[in-house]
Amino acid sequence: MILRIKNKIEQELISYIRNVDKAYSLSKISPLLYDSIQNFLSRKGKRIRPILFVLGYLGFAKKPASGLYKSALSLELLHDFTLVHDDIIDKSATRRGKPSMHEMLNKHLENYKKIKFTGQDLTIVIGDVMYAMALEAFLAIKENRLRKEIALKKLIRAAIYTGSGEFIELLSGAKNIDKISKEDIYKIYDLKTANYTFAAPLCMGALLGGAEKEQADIIFNLGIYLGRAFQIRDDCLGLFGKERETGKPNLTDLQEAKKQSLSGTLIIDRQKKMD
Amino acid sequence: MILRIKNKIEQELISYIRNVDKAYSLSKISPLLYDSIQNFLSRKGKRIRPILFVLGYLGFAKKPASGLYKSALSLELLHDFTLVHDDIIDKSATRRGKPSMHEMLNKHLENYKKIKFTGQDLTIVIGDVMYAMALEAFLAIKENRLRKEIALKKLIRAAIYTGSGEFIELLSGAKNIDKISKEDIYKIYDLKTANYTFAAPLCMGALLGGAEKEQADIIFNLGIYLGRAFQIRDDCLGLFGKERETGKPNLTDLQEAKKQSLSGTLIIDRQKKMD
Repeated sequence: MILRIKNKIEQELISYIRNVDKAYSLSKISPLLYDSIQNFLSRKGKRIRPILFVLGYLGFAKKPASGLYKSALSLELLHDFTLVHDDIIDKSATRRGKPSMHEMLNKHLENYKKIKFTGQDLTIVIGDVMYAMALEAFLAIKENRLRKEIALKKLIRAAIYTGSGEFIELLSGAKNIDKISKEDIYKIYDLKTANYTFAAPLCMGALLGGAEKEQADIIFNLGIYLGRAFQIRDDCLGLFGKERETGKPNLTDLQEAKKQSLSGTLIIDRQKKMD
Repeated sequence: MILRIKNKIEQELISYIRNVDKAYSLSKISPLLYDSIQNFLSRKGKRIRPILFVLGYLGFAKKPASGLYKSALSLELLHDFTLVHDDIIDKSATRRGKPSMHEMLNKHLENYKKIKFTGQDLTIVIGDVMYAMALEAFLAIKENRLRKEIALKKLIRAAIYTGSGEFIELLSGAKNIDKISKEDIYKIYDLKTANYTFAAPLCMGALLGGAEKEQADIIFNLGIYLGRAFQIRDDCLGLFGKERETGKPNLTDLQEAKKQSLSGTLIIDRQKKMD
């Protein structure tokens, strides 16, 4: 069932990329803007967030509403926007096996002379456009408008917390490693990843599908724990897993002191934001 | 009447800054995050966007709905988020008479040793949080949900076009000045400023207040022309106005070839985004 949902999401993503251009004439405004977004969105990914959104919905609704899959894409787009901004901050050269957005744009800018801006500058703006696209996609579902508003509030809350989590994670990098408590780490886990990757998608889907507030709250909390579990596993793999399997070098993390065993848990690795 | 609306908006902004902390525990998550946002939002501004939003609404509704003024703040917050991101791109040290957001944060980071990130990095993330706050504020109005959804779509469209306009404006800086046509300039004017400063606020307010689609379209187009007029005037003042009156040096603009008389109009000055 999950594979079937994933396939539908992939199809929807292809239509979305085409339709968003029709709706907003992006390629007419700037072929570079549109091509860059298209390139990034077309890359392979786990699609975990839209899958959870659809699962949450189908757990309560009798049948899929029109626009359900486009709405689910909102979470993929929100994720993509955070990735392009994060990659600037982390100075990451690659993303999903290809150049990161700012790398792509810097490559393009090599053709220009005497410019006062960088691929990073353009990427800040592209990320902001993708953020708006995420919201546009969310509104596609034909569902009861009260439910839509409640689910949208969850999306907005997730976006506020994702940014806040990113903010405190950056600041925690400036702290002495001994000063970071287990609680600090869970706070970052919960705010930065668990909310918008697990809790919000499941809960938003459930609310749209007709879940009561109490049910949605339980699902949200379940999502937070799922998110923590995922991140601890991901960090263990990053530290002890074989590079061949994880696709990432593990020694580097330790060398850079990005991760250290601490109170039985681990500091998350900024580079390893899951795709 | 406009002054009365502006006063109400100022009051609403003060409550908003306090209440958003209660709703999302921002100062508990990170005092630096909350204090920086509070500092920026509290600065003086013309509040032209929320004023137009309220005027658009009152032109059609019989009386102000509950939450109207909080909803109007969405446009101020959207503007504030674009300012903090723009100031990174433009390397602006000041904004609204005080240090720009990244300058403030860089100052704060002087207390830290051995950090791998900058105030600019933190500001990318703060901008993203303010973006979400704008959406949260918008949803406050107690109005018919269909109208809210239609108005929200206008807000999202404005956000997509503002980013796209910013993108092509940056790229136009790489073009030879002779290659930029009057149409290019109007395209930037319309996308980057006229839409979210004049057209969208008026039109969103009108739609929420009960305007029909045809009426809202006319109001939107009026807003685009108002926006063009404003920008041409603003550029003329920037070029020929006295520094004492405009608060900005005019010679610098010419020296940097940011503005040149061209086909009877002017290239907008990126630094002079109106507050």
